[in-house]
Amino acid sequence: MSESIYKIIDLVGSSPNSWEEAATNAIERAGQSLRDLRIAEVQKLDIKIEDGKPAQFRTNLRLSFKYQD
Amino acid sequence: MSESIYKIIDLVGSSPNSWEEAATNAIERAGQSLRDLRIAEVQKLDIKIEDGKPAQFRTNLRLSFKYQD
Amino acid sequence: MSESIYKIIDLVGSSPNSWEEAATNAIERAGQSLRDLRIAEVQKLDIKIEDGKPAQFRTNLRLSFKYQD
Amino acid sequence: MSESIYKIIDLVGSSPNSWEEAATNAIERAGQSLRDLRIAEVQKLDIKIEDGKPAQFRTNLRLSFKYQD
Amino acid sequence: MSESIYKIIDLVGSSPNSWEEAATNAIERAGQSLRDLRIAEVQKLDIKIEDGKPAQFRTNLRLSFKYQD
Amino acid sequence: MSESIYKIIDLVGSSPNSWEEAATNAIERAGQSLRDLRIAEVQKLDIKIEDGKPAQFRTNLRLSFKYQD
Amino acid sequence: MSESIYKIIDLVGSSPNSWEEAATNAIERAGQSLRDLRIAEVQKLDIKIEDGKPAQFRTNLRLSFKYQD
Amino acid sequence: MSESIYKIIDLVGSSPNSWEEAATNAIERAGQSLRDLRIAEVQKLDIKIEDGKPAQFRTNLRLSFKYQD
Amino acid sequence: MSESIYKIIDLVGSSPNSWEEAATNAIERAGQSLRDLRIAEVQKLDIKIEDGKPAQFRTNLRLSFKYQD
Amino acid sequence: MSESIYKIIDLVGSSPNSWEEAATNAIERAGQSLRDLRIAEVQKLDIKIEDGKPAQFRTNLRLSFKYQD
Amino acid sequence: MSESIYKIIDLVGSSPNSWEEAATNAIERAGQSLRDLRIAEVQKLDIKIEDGKPAQFRTNLRLSFKYQD
Amino acid sequence: MSESIYKIIDLVGSSPNSWEEAATNAIERAGQSLRDLRIAEVQKLDIKIEDGKPAQFRTNLRLSFKYQD
Repeated sequence: MSESIYKIIDLVGSSPNSWEEAATNAIERAGQSLRDLRIAEVQKLDIKIEDGKPAQFRTNLRLSFKYQD
Repeated sequence: MSESIYKIIDLVGSSPNSWEEAATNAIERAGQSLRDLRIAEVQKLDIKIEDGKPAQFRTNLRLSFKYQD
Repeated sequence: MSESIYKIIDLVGSSPNSWEEAATNAIERAGQSLRDLRIAEVQKLDIKIEDGKPAQFRTNLRLSFKYQD
Repeated sequence: MSESIYKIIDLVGSSPNSWEEAATNAIERAGQSLRDLRIAEVQKLDIKIEDGKPAQFRTNLRLSFKYQD
Repeated sequence: MSESIYKIIDLVGSSPNSWEEAATNAIERAGQSLRDLRIAEVQKLDIKIEDGKPAQFRTNLRLSFKYQD
Repeated sequence: MSESIYKIIDLVGSSPNSWEEAATNAIERAGQSLRDLRIAEVQKLDIKIEDGKPAQFRTNLRLSFKYQD
Repeated sequence: MSESIYKIIDLVGSSPNSWEEAATNAIERAGQSLRDLRIAEVQKLDIKIEDGKPAQFRTNLRLSFKYQD
Repeated sequence: MSESIYKIIDLVGSSPNSWEEAATNAIERAGQSLRDLRIAEVQKLDIKIEDGKPAQFRTNLRLSFKYQD
Repeated sequence: MSESIYKIIDLVGSSPNSWEEAATNAIERAGQSLRDLRIAEVQKLDIKIEDGKPAQFRTNLRLSFKYQD
Repeated sequence: MSESIYKIIDLVGSSPNSWEEAATNAIERAGQSLRDLRIAEVQKLDIKIEDGKPAQFRTNLRLSFKYQD
Repeated sequence: MSESIYKIIDLVGSSPNSWEEAATNAIERAGQSLRDLRIAEVQKLDIKIEDGKPAQFRTNLRLSFKYQD
Repeated sequence: MSESIYKIIDLVGSSPNSWEEAATNAIERAGQSLRDLRIAEVQKLDIKIEDGKPAQFRTNLRLSFKYQD
């Protein structure tokens, strides 16, 4: 059977500067070990606050990649 | 009947740099032909990945404008 | 009874530049009077349009803080 | 191929008096140019406020009609 | 065991005039045979269109009543 | 920093006659003390039933206004 | 009062072959005793697995019919 | 046709002590007349308050059972 | 500005045989006039019933294509 | 105008033992200053973990009470 | 402690012919390495389009199996 | 790059006694191999029924932990 099977995972990246950078951090980390990443869908955005100011922007991403248990 | 009728459309803009720039691209393109744009609501954010890195940030926007079939 | 009770509020910040700056404005304003802010969850992002261009990026945030009616 | 294809659009009607009248305004306007309207589903109701009082009741409707690009 | 058990049902009422009247029709019909109705929650509003005009306003209600299979 | 911050609150108004009147009651009450109300979004509609008939139509509204803790 | 009242029920049909056949089984069974069925909306699809293979495709349907308690 | 058809109903049980006990009350009551109950999914939890204290914990459950109109 | 803008539309196809065939009908019809269709997301499945049997399987699809007002 | 207006707030209570106790803590605290609390709807349940074990069960509740800005 | 713990994963299968076959491909692949699969819930259906025609039907499934990190 | 990346997984624990105990079982099992668990969010509660009575309370939890593929 030649049809591809994909697995979906949720990752959360963070950055002190922006949600784009937070997402980039998560994608680049995942790209070190997962094959064939194509789309990352944002599931949720939030902000960790310290001393009444934003400390970390966090991006929760859904990623799919070729399945190999 | 003088009440205004609005139509709603969904557009997706993209940018290699940020979701704000992706949204701006879509709004400026829509603004060339649609009248009376006032609010754009984000429906979804995602990222197109190439070679394990973010290639395009994409912003899905809902826009309303004066209806003229 | 020593367990803490938290209250949740929704705020909307705005910025001509980015959703991160809009969120930061709302958090810093809230931090002037609310104690123990820790996480701000994004509920909604939108854009106010003027003359066919983005005028304000707006971030709707959910914040929790120690309850004191 | 004889099966019908339908297209779905979202319209927003408004009225100073009621959400039913707002919906009626949108449906009658759409009916001038769209064929075979049968059901309008309410997606959202809201109210535009002026001087602390309701100025316009607005009804966001989803309508389907025979598709002809 | 003296605690009451409630059952929930969904009904759809209709009226040529308003969603309130549509809801009233459904509640009064249900009230003929069901005991202890207290709250009706609106699940959905729609409109049946005939000849390009609203023909029936329809209200989908969720009702709870004392359970007796 | 001149950007405005808005706070969002949920109110429930009621009326024996209609959901529009219920919403109007809540908005007029809020307008006595809150500044710069512009849009009220309907979150939920329900009906309080007494003696098998509608007694109160209730409208749950989300309102935003200028924030001043 | 001549307006019709409809009741909504949820049924689950199953089939070893397809979700369409599962839905058909549920509709034909309901049609033996319920009057005036017109639309069945899919609420959920799932699959019962046995020995690592699909054993039953199941379709959860929402059906409305004329109300007679 | 030998495939089973299931019907889904929503019940609400209550208890002064816990949501588990509230659910148990509803399931045991339903089990007196319904065949082949297997899973109860929680749809909603709430609390009835009297004199500023919890009076009843209530569990809204979705149950499926063999259909026999 | 070279970034592509996409527009999203919702279509409903129907077939007496299957939801796949219903979707295929809608996609092939849209493909006659829209450029660069790549993904169709299912929004909703339903069935039109006649004489107590399924008459039409209907598939509501969300499609994106290159925007040219 | 004699119709009552209600305001809705979200509180989060916590307890090392159970979600019921967490909810009770929040309700009793709110009851010290808010009038006419009647229903608390659960919005979300979560658990704070310390050293790999549950440290606090937390219940997020929606409460309505008579509005007096 | 003898209670079983289950882990949930999301897989996407594809097929040129049907969503049922796409789901079967994903389940059979997962069944090679995961124990005790019992239910697969459909999370999403979509279609990959090539040359204006459906090329792959894709089924996104949620599967649970016995947990062994 | 020093920013932490988190992975999210969904587990289901069960207990004959309570949803809290079911959650505790899942968390303690996960804590044996996953680092830095801090929050578990409830996704779903259900009950396995045997002989018309609750046999297992089950809690579906979402957990995040430091990512190391």
